[in-house]
Amino acid sequence: MRFFSDNAAPVSPAVMAAIAAADHVDTAYDGDTLSRGLDAAFSALFETQVAVLWVATGTAANSLALAALCPPHGAVVTHREAHIQVDECGAPEFFTHGAKLLLAEGEGAKLTPDAVTAVIDAIRVDVHRAQPAALSITNATEYGLVYTPDEVAALGALARARGLGFHMDGARFANAVAHLGCHPADVTWRAGVDVLSFGFVKNGGMSAEALVFFKPELAAATHYRRKRAGHLLSKGRYLAAQLHAMLKDDLWIANARAANDGAARLAAAAGDRLVYPVEANEVFLRLTPQEAAALRAQGFDFYDWAPGEARLVTAWSQPEAEIAALAAAISAL
Amino acid sequence: MRFFSDNAAPVSPAVMAAIAAADHVDTAYDGDTLSRGLDAAFSALFETQVAVLWVATGTAANSLALAALCPPHGAVVTHREAHIQVDECGAPEFFTHGAKLLLAEGEGAKLTPDAVTAVIDAIRVDVHRAQPAALSITNATEYGLVYTPDEVAALGALARARGLGFHMDGARFANAVAHLGCHPADVTWRAGVDVLSFGFVKNGGMSAEALVFFKPELAAATHYRRKRAGHLLSKGRYLAAQLHAMLKDDLWIANARAANDGAARLAAAAGDRLVYPVEANEVFLRLTPQEAAALRAQGFDFYDWAPGEARLVTAWSQPEAEIAALAAAISAL
Amino acid sequence: MRFFSDNAAPVSPAVMAAIAAADHVDTAYDGDTLSRGLDAAFSALFETQVAVLWVATGTAANSLALAALCPPHGAVVTHREAHIQVDECGAPEFFTHGAKLLLAEGEGAKLTPDAVTAVIDAIRVDVHRAQPAALSITNATEYGLVYTPDEVAALGALARARGLGFHMDGARFANAVAHLGCHPADVTWRAGVDVLSFGFVKNGGMSAEALVFFKPELAAATHYRRKRAGHLLSKGRYLAAQLHAMLKDDLWIANARAANDGAARLAAAAGDRLVYPVEANEVFLRLTPQEAAALRAQGFDFYDWAPGEARLVTAWSQPEAEIAALAAAISAL
Amino acid sequence: MRFFSDNAAPVSPAVMAAIAAADHVDTAYDGDTLSRGLDAAFSALFETQVAVLWVATGTAANSLALAALCPPHGAVVTHREAHIQVDECGAPEFFTHGAKLLLAEGEGAKLTPDAVTAVIDAIRVDVHRAQPAALSITNATEYGLVYTPDEVAALGALARARGLGFHMDGARFANAVAHLGCHPADVTWRAGVDVLSFGFVKNGGMSAEALVFFKPELAAATHYRRKRAGHLLSKGRYLAAQLHAMLKDDLWIANARAANDGAARLAAAAGDRLVYPVEANEVFLRLTPQEAAALRAQGFDFYDWAPGEARLVTAWSQPEAEIAALAAAISAL
Repeated sequence: MRFFSDNAAPVSPAVMAAIAAADHVDTAYDGDTLSRGLDAAFSALFETQVAVLWVATGTAANSLALAALCPPHGAVVTHREAHIQVDECGAPEFFTHGAKLLLAEGEGAKLTPDAVTAVIDAIRVDVHRAQPAALSITNATEYGLVYTPDEVAALGALARARGLGFHMDGARFANAVAHLGCHPADVTWRAGVDVLSFGFVKNGGMSAEALVFFKPELAAATHYRRKRAGHLLSKGRYLAAQLHAMLKDDLWIANARAANDGAARLAAAAGDRLVYPVEANEVFLRLTPQEAAALRAQGFDFYDWAPGEARLVTAWSQPEAEIAALAAAISAL
Repeated sequence: MRFFSDNAAPVSPAVMAAIAAADHVDTAYDGDTLSRGLDAAFSALFETQVAVLWVATGTAANSLALAALCPPHGAVVTHREAHIQVDECGAPEFFTHGAKLLLAEGEGAKLTPDAVTAVIDAIRVDVHRAQPAALSITNATEYGLVYTPDEVAALGALARARGLGFHMDGARFANAVAHLGCHPADVTWRAGVDVLSFGFVKNGGMSAEALVFFKPELAAATHYRRKRAGHLLSKGRYLAAQLHAMLKDDLWIANARAANDGAARLAAAAGDRLVYPVEANEVFLRLTPQEAAALRAQGFDFYDWAPGEARLVTAWSQPEAEIAALAAAISAL
Repeated sequence: MRFFSDNAAPVSPAVMAAIAAADHVDTAYDGDTLSRGLDAAFSALFETQVAVLWVATGTAANSLALAALCPPHGAVVTHREAHIQVDECGAPEFFTHGAKLLLAEGEGAKLTPDAVTAVIDAIRVDVHRAQPAALSITNATEYGLVYTPDEVAALGALARARGLGFHMDGARFANAVAHLGCHPADVTWRAGVDVLSFGFVKNGGMSAEALVFFKPELAAATHYRRKRAGHLLSKGRYLAAQLHAMLKDDLWIANARAANDGAARLAAAAGDRLVYPVEANEVFLRLTPQEAAALRAQGFDFYDWAPGEARLVTAWSQPEAEIAALAAAISAL
Repeated sequence: MRFFSDNAAPVSPAVMAAIAAADHVDTAYDGDTLSRGLDAAFSALFETQVAVLWVATGTAANSLALAALCPPHGAVVTHREAHIQVDECGAPEFFTHGAKLLLAEGEGAKLTPDAVTAVIDAIRVDVHRAQPAALSITNATEYGLVYTPDEVAALGALARARGLGFHMDGARFANAVAHLGCHPADVTWRAGVDVLSFGFVKNGGMSAEALVFFKPELAAATHYRRKRAGHLLSKGRYLAAQLHAMLKDDLWIANARAANDGAARLAAAAGDRLVYPVEANEVFLRLTPQEAAALRAQGFDFYDWAPGEARLVTAWSQPEAEIAALAAAISAL
């Protein structure tokens, strides 16, 4: 029973069906009908004009977003434990040609205007310092916390005031929106976000993420950067099909709710063991090595995060029985 | 009727079935069983120990290969019309961090030892010149010509003598091998090739190419470079499944033969109009604008290559009736 | 007797005196009075508002100029034998983060609008191709030919029409202006040049070149790029002093005239042996190996350029007697 | 009276004389006799075979050193306040093509094996993490503390054990050695250092630093990187001359002692105000804004470092009277 990562989950049946339905002759790269329909589909979802590019990974989405916002001699403010800093092997540095990541602090990998300001204010305006050009947050965060629209808006206002582009890593954006119950616009462009890495792979997709530009003009050079990074797949229709399937009938929200519900049940069982409130589909638990071993002995697979802490992730597809079993096992510790 | 590109073709049924069969919970990235079985599968095919990485595009495969062979201050010798030079928006320069491409001449985008030597000899050993570090050829070439094992071996010997890494862009490697009827080893490592971009997408795959290192030690850093380029898909098993399906029962050869056969029939119809001998699945024809328009009026879609020249590409899946109709239409011009 | 390179020449006495005169406590980097006076000094010279940065090498000047004009995914059109292509070990690629150089043809390393148009027109507007973003010419060219104001203006008009930034590598700009007898503005910004690498080292300087932006707003990011490239010397006043000394009393023109005059005398002696007209301070001669050996046996040092061709370069400081001796020796061949 | 930076100081008379003495015709770039003599001169100084390249700035020296030790996908462990992190505008990232700097903690910008180990151990061996490839320390540190031979050796042993290249930023290496009274070898290669940025500009030079490779084979590619970065000056003899002059009669040590002595006198006057022990030529003082203003009113120029802290730097050339006056003024606060 895998609670290791939502990347381990299979593909939503509707997505698989859409891939099969796209299996015909069509124009190569992103000239096909499905790819060309993405701007409209996402513009409808977000209630504003957006420009959308499919990419195959969240790392590519994040890195292309940052390259659109930050010059090589600039800097990106982000959290010390942000995925872009600790889990992408320097991809942001590769795509931006060496921009610096400036690391801010915050509980649960969540940034506040004060934390960001502290980082920026330490950089004097001077050619000896890489100047902050962008701000990047993750929603839901790497610890499963969710920024509210107000929290994002406060950061958005700061970004605007300080001349920073504003990127949201939304590898688990669906889980965040499902938790908030808000409109996806409220926590993105209405709150000042310029570019969103809208994740689908962890949420039932196979190999397609959406890079959403709320300032469509930022997308122009990104088309070249995507090709130059080898991310313009020649049969792009199979990626576009996935995104359309995820948007159809709000499958993305339904899947995220399912994952969040599973995590909530584990959280209820975990009680005082929780390191952070459980707002999305990740549960961080205090476990002794003996307790961790006991859970593993019962067939539960998960990640040792830090000494005495474990990470459990629930997927959209997690069987009800697995959730119940794990909840019971945690309660019984 | 699309003779525009083999990228327009659908996915081989066996590949689609393999994708569906991979649709279960498994380890993320390339830790799954399918991904971990690739080295063995390709080693068996090539009759030598190889290290294989899946990537989603030929551009990524080529660029990662070149980055493994050439330092940022080095140079890659290739043909003036090589795909890496004219069709990848500077991806080799991106992945190699700015290595130079040195362009050699040759009919039909085919290089000879003399042509390569002429380029190398013009570069004095001196810090003012980016020194040649790699040689890259395309087999079949961008004009559908096929290097024989002897021709590759001659270039391989040159590469070894001059200290160059040797890369083969095999976007249509299957078509080349199908034409040659040789063992795939004969035209690669036995002929001195160090790294092969083994293309499957044009030949019935959906989104998986194989980057094959005949010197397995070259692959180590490439694992980091792949991640850093955003090319480590989180559900890699769906890519690995495609490659296994293509190798199974030599589907890759069967598909390539089908495509080549279609091209051969068009070539027979074209007679004197052929710009190059047709050895793989591309047909370059002399056509007046009027003739091109006449073919298009009959529903045939293709690419205007150069003034008075058209490119027709046949796919593994090209319906028999389409081939027959186009052959007839060409004959009737 | 060295006719190998004008880089071999010593430093103009006025420059050395200016360096000595700058030898006092002052603000570091480019905050000193001399550095801060450069914009005014060069604006006066060019009769327009310019922004100027000192750098220590022509390679840095050229590369920073190109980085200001061309994005990493773009391309620079230049001559096949341009210094930026053949003599800088990929520095333009390094500073631009991998932009491509697109090579145009032309006698004597000189470009025409037709030659540039041929290169640009071959690049379709498409993400698969690095799009031309800049044009770079060398004046005087690598073969000692000089672009006239009209010739530059024709290229400038083309650059403007095609949306290209326009860079002039002026490693021997002084020699070009001395030959033309025109105002330096006529062959630069009045003819559409955006950025000039104004060379002084070959012309009597020690270690300072001027990067001149005729669109001062282009200079802002370049200040960061210069620092980031390690080219912001901490005692910049010693570089600024050199530039002021070269501008004072038009020393730059006087030195260039001296060098050009020497070359003209050699050209007169060479007659039919000249490969190109001698317009600046470089003389390309047809010489058999025996003749080259004969000259060397008489103590003349020079560069074998191509089979049967030699390059002789005269410096601002070349002793009268050396010129006379070499002219006589050439006549006597 | 400037206590702002040792970069503000003039050039040592012996250095200026050496520059003047180098003012004759010679081979360009680093082919001249002076440049070619550097390996021998520094090998004699360090009592081991070294390879030395001149460069014009410490930033270039540091960045080229790191590029020689760390691949683009790797990481450099350094102090959070290291010059390479906070004062070079991302130059290390530029030269290494985007390697990450991993920041360790330590009082006075000084690293310990424990601090370095903590950073390294947090990086699991996994393609998602840029792997540590190099360690960089600054001696004397950015706060004027000096690593002893034993302290360096402990870090060197760690570096060797963990497979890290070991770089020392010696912008004030002379001040460190002057303080230690040890042989320069003791605190470099005998302690495991692979590459040293040996600074001279702050210590009486004009525009030449020495990049010293204790593993000479590391220098080979660096020659290409230096050219490609625009750092191969065409009249390199004027840089080489400076280095020879600084080594002659141990001028580098004499100058450093003079600077250190000045700082020691200020330190004695400062007493409890010292933030760090004064070991080299930098003095960090606790000063209220009123006290800082009072000193400035008396004509002393210095840098506000942090709230309530000021940085005073003494130069090799600081007039005795200025030191005495400042010491008295501090005592009188």
